[in-house]
Amino acid sequence: MAVYTQVCDEALATFLDEYDLGTPRAFKGIAEGVENSNYYLETDQGRFILTLFERRADPKDLPYFIDLKRHLSTRNYPCPAPVAGRDGHALRQLQGRPAVIVSFLDGLSPRRPNTSQCRSLGEGLARMHLALADFEKTRANSLGPASWPGLWKGRAATADDLQEGLAELIENDLSAIAAAKPQSFEIPRGTIHADLFPDNAFFLGDEFTGAIDFYFACTDALAYDIAVCLNSWAFEDGKEYNFSKGSALIAGYESVRRLETRERDALPALCRGAALRFFLTRLVDWTDTPADALVRPKNPLDYAARLSFHRKDVSAADYGA
Amino acid sequence: MAVYTQVCDEALATFLDEYDLGTPRAFKGIAEGVENSNYYLETDQGRFILTLFERRADPKDLPYFIDLKRHLSTRNYPCPAPVAGRDGHALRQLQGRPAVIVSFLDGLSPRRPNTSQCRSLGEGLARMHLALADFEKTRANSLGPASWPGLWKGRAATADDLQEGLAELIENDLSAIAAAKPQSFEIPRGTIHADLFPDNAFFLGDEFTGAIDFYFACTDALAYDIAVCLNSWAFEDGKEYNFSKGSALIAGYESVRRLETRERDALPALCRGAALRFFLTRLVDWTDTPADALVRPKNPLDYAARLSFHRKDVSAADYGA
Repeated sequence: MAVYTQVCDEALATFLDEYDLGTPRAFKGIAEGVENSNYYLETDQGRFILTLFERRADPKDLPYFIDLKRHLSTRNYPCPAPVAGRDGHALRQLQGRPAVIVSFLDGLSPRRPNTSQCRSLGEGLARMHLALADFEKTRANSLGPASWPGLWKGRAATADDLQEGLAELIENDLSAIAAAKPQSFEIPRGTIHADLFPDNAFFLGDEFTGAIDFYFACTDALAYDIAVCLNSWAFEDGKEYNFSKGSALIAGYESVRRLETRERDALPALCRGAALRFFLTRLVDWTDTPADALVRPKNPLDYAARLSFHRKDVSAADYGA
Repeated sequence: MAVYTQVCDEALATFLDEYDLGTPRAFKGIAEGVENSNYYLETDQGRFILTLFERRADPKDLPYFIDLKRHLSTRNYPCPAPVAGRDGHALRQLQGRPAVIVSFLDGLSPRRPNTSQCRSLGEGLARMHLALADFEKTRANSLGPASWPGLWKGRAATADDLQEGLAELIENDLSAIAAAKPQSFEIPRGTIHADLFPDNAFFLGDEFTGAIDFYFACTDALAYDIAVCLNSWAFEDGKEYNFSKGSALIAGYESVRRLETRERDALPALCRGAALRFFLTRLVDWTDTPADALVRPKNPLDYAARLSFHRKDVSAADYGA
């Protein structure tokens, strides 16, 4: 939530020379997204977001993300639509960084989504999966189960510092998931968002108006996307599972795309895996973020609390599926 | 340039219940201003900025700043116009902080203002002085000459660490200004902006479209405002005085309001004082800002370089007046 790279009026004017967007009328750095620099840009032609990709973004992944958003927007799915320059290219360079201009999306992110918003989000997620069904590019999930032992390595003591006995619980989660092998579940796979937290979704009132921040999108089980959303939308204060919200989210999803029985059965393992993935990456950020960083790391314990729900002998019905 | 206080969608909705602005369509924290939290807010009624005043703002000064902006906007002077709630009050509370909604101002801040922009800024400054001529409230300049010895106290070693021999030069500046007594110059006084740096001024092309950030505004010599602007607009790379830009700024000002001979004569002392004021406050921020602060302090040496120009035996003509 910071602007890492300053773009001055002159640099912007030079950059906009490559587009047919008219002259700028307003330009302000905004606190959106965690890893990149974003600017609100208004020109004679409308409102846009200019994103500069900072070091954590792998430049070779960027065409995938941009093509994905272009694909969604050609299907009229509400997301930031990449704007091409006069040469037809959307991905350019600015201040020595890859940069892209996308369309502005109306809506606000809910901090505490209500049940109606959860239902609407579920519908929006399913519509996204359908709109991406014929998206041909693929990208491996670099934060899938294969990556988790590496993220965990050497961090047991940190986990125990955060909460006594936590390391052993996490070891058990890792073993259980290694035994369950969710990667080999025979369930529908395709292009998923993989990070559709409330701050990456916009609403007007209770109506989902679009998704942003596709920078973890990848090819994986569609139901894993539901698992990520159940973790991030349906836990009250990061602790208690809210059955009404969770079942509304799933019902919203199913109003657009029915879950197969095997997907439903896979939900508990996928939810546990998703919680572990966010616990581990937050644990890494927690220890690796320098004290003077512009962004404060999020507390990994929020996801440890979710794991204690998933760890119980829960079935799909316990999630409301 | 940071968002210190998070405002969620629910808090915003409750806050907007007090206004006739319709429902919000977009809401994003923006990196504007140094001391407060600012949000870009779009509703059915248009575009606005929501400001939350953080600790450094003295609550008892806020009505002055808001009345000043309201006064300017009723004179059609381009600045953020405070928006009153249904009860007629513009200054309210949000997240335990004083907060205000103001109108959105088109334009971009120039990083390296050109000569035409300097001229246009000079005109805009003079028009501001005229528009404020009948503003009845007053506020002492809390960063005037009387405050400088206190800011300097105990910081000589820091100054010498930054640049060998700097402390002695600053002592000389303080003595020279104490002897010159600019507070007692018999020159026109009124309401001034006192901080009209390029990042507080907006332009479309070379045309000045408005001023923001009136939080140092006070009652002082009008020519002191010109001195602040000459320091912040007319020094190339923070070092060399650019005579073309400086004289354009003054000519722009005089195209709206002629300077009196005594004001012209006072310019060198006022410029030296203004540079000293910004050197000292930057020196304080330089030493007092914790390493993990969200805002990086500006280098005081930029203003030490300006002081070395003002210290020479310069006349008003040397500034282009």
